[in-house]
Amino acid sequence: MPERFREDDFHAFIRSHASALGPHVLQGPGDDLAVMDFHGHALLMGVDQVIEGVHFLPGTAPEAIGRKAVTRNISDVAAMACRPVATLASCVLPMDVSPAFAQRLVDAVRRTAQQFNAPLVGGDTALHRSQGPLTLSVTVLAEPLSPTRPPVLRSTAKADDRLFVTGLLGGSLRPDGSGRHLDFEPRVDEAEALATTLGESLHAMMDLSDGLAQDAARMALASGLQAVIDAAALPCSPGCGWRNAMGDGEDYELLLAVGGGRAVPSHVGRGRTPTRAIGLMRAMPKPDAPRVICMLNDIEIAVEHLGRFNDGQVDGA
Amino acid sequence: MPERFREDDFHAFIRSHASALGPHVLQGPGDDLAVMDFHGHALLMGVDQVIEGVHFLPGTAPEAIGRKAVTRNISDVAAMACRPVATLASCVLPMDVSPAFAQRLVDAVRRTAQQFNAPLVGGDTALHRSQGPLTLSVTVLAEPLSPTRPPVLRSTAKADDRLFVTGLLGGSLRPDGSGRHLDFEPRVDEAEALATTLGESLHAMMDLSDGLAQDAARMALASGLQAVIDAAALPCSPGCGWRNAMGDGEDYELLLAVGGGRAVPSHVGRGRTPTRAIGLMRAMPKPDAPRVICMLNDIEIAVEHLGRFNDGQVDGA
Repeated sequence: MPERFREDDFHAFIRSHASALGPHVLQGPGDDLAVMDFHGHALLMGVDQVIEGVHFLPGTAPEAIGRKAVTRNISDVAAMACRPVATLASCVLPMDVSPAFAQRLVDAVRRTAQQFNAPLVGGDTALHRSQGPLTLSVTVLAEPLSPTRPPVLRSTAKADDRLFVTGLLGGSLRPDGSGRHLDFEPRVDEAEALATTLGESLHAMMDLSDGLAQDAARMALASGLQAVIDAAALPCSPGCGWRNAMGDGEDYELLLAVGGGRAVPSHVGRGRTPTRAIGLMRAMPKPDAPRVICMLNDIEIAVEHLGRFNDGQVDGA
Repeated sequence: MPERFREDDFHAFIRSHASALGPHVLQGPGDDLAVMDFHGHALLMGVDQVIEGVHFLPGTAPEAIGRKAVTRNISDVAAMACRPVATLASCVLPMDVSPAFAQRLVDAVRRTAQQFNAPLVGGDTALHRSQGPLTLSVTVLAEPLSPTRPPVLRSTAKADDRLFVTGLLGGSLRPDGSGRHLDFEPRVDEAEALATTLGESLHAMMDLSDGLAQDAARMALASGLQAVIDAAALPCSPGCGWRNAMGDGEDYELLLAVGGGRAVPSHVGRGRTPTRAIGLMRAMPKPDAPRVICMLNDIEIAVEHLGRFNDGQVDGA
């Protein structure tokens, strides 16, 4: 174990015991969601949390906190080209929280979950006994879009797949704590359109939460490949450069690996969200090669140091 | 809203929006677990958390913390006479946590979940950015024991049902923070035996987490009845009196409402756990009557003030 405990270590540790998960677990920890066989139907589930001082700054409105706690999870559902079916929430509130704040928070969770057809069916609340930050954990359950379209994993990219992203990357978190990280739209609609259009050519997909550099490396590692990103091709948010697109994190856009010569629509979903080709997957050139490299003016740049720590820390927060 | 935010308020608030939960939610918030219809099969789910300083004291071994976080949820599964199928966990660790402590905690969650055939399939970990207590939230998924045995709710007790509890009540939390609240055995086995033996005479069931006074009142309220408890009949833990049995909480025993003259075995399950008749349900004598009363030497005693606050605080912790 390294000195700091990180989510990837947690997942690696759990995966090392995966043989104990039993025959009904089709996909254990390590992807956006786990997949179980429930009486012949795929049932997906995952949990994600937001913590004051980590995922949002003190003073953030409860409506924004509750919404983000849910949309982070809905983004995971989109990433597997699935449909959410239910949510549960647990929160620990500061000892001096006002009932009005608590009710606004719960109401935001409920309304956001309902908006994505994932009714909030259960919860647990507690108060800190001493000083402590607000924490809000949301569990999401989901199912495939249709019985013939299994969940799209991150571990099934193939060599020569082209890589695409939706939307714009970088700059999600403004210095004052506001920004797209609080009000992003999970790409459920876009994921459904892509899964329908691309069919089996959509080899792998995940959402971008910790920065493209970190997340593309994860997809490459899970698939046994190396991701090559073209810095000049990155769709950067206004005022952002390729380093922001690689490392800022909290984009909640989709990263896709698409096989063959299959055409990817330039815009997808009801919101006509743009897609952009940003690179490709290839076989590892040597066993200890980095999982992601970035090409800029024909020069190979190491970018694995970019991106957020995977325990969910917000850079600069 | 009252001045303090409490779990019952949370549930009442959620229930007030239950019409929005949709046709697939068979039982929304308010019972031990929610129940959904997933492709014709009942799927149960719930979430419960443990917080340093609330559910365990600082200095508690990570093995005990991880175990309790899981067994609290397994107790909810037992309470509905169901079988656990999977768990997910999210935790926020103190900023100075050692990797060894974190791994022992995760391992305890994993092993305990496995012990109850509920593999840990997903998780999320984060570190506090400033001082803050360890919080660990566990979601459990469950299913009925058989297709012909629907989940046993707390809201379906009937007038003249006899009330029973398993095991001994009171004294679960020792002053030094140790005690049965950390190492109780969830009554999964006992619940299955009772459901099998009693069949449809097992009208209602729940687990006792906040003290019999609070929890019997909840079953009575949910069922539109009044619970009458015989103080002299309470099975008290060694060194405990009826007030402890009524109010200490954290017993994680079962409370059953049994109809007709159906005999209840004096001992159930592989551990031969004792059962005890402690009272009955009856129609509310008047609309504003208390939901639970306690009879001692033919005198009616109000006990609704006993028991823990339902936000999970440990008395005296």
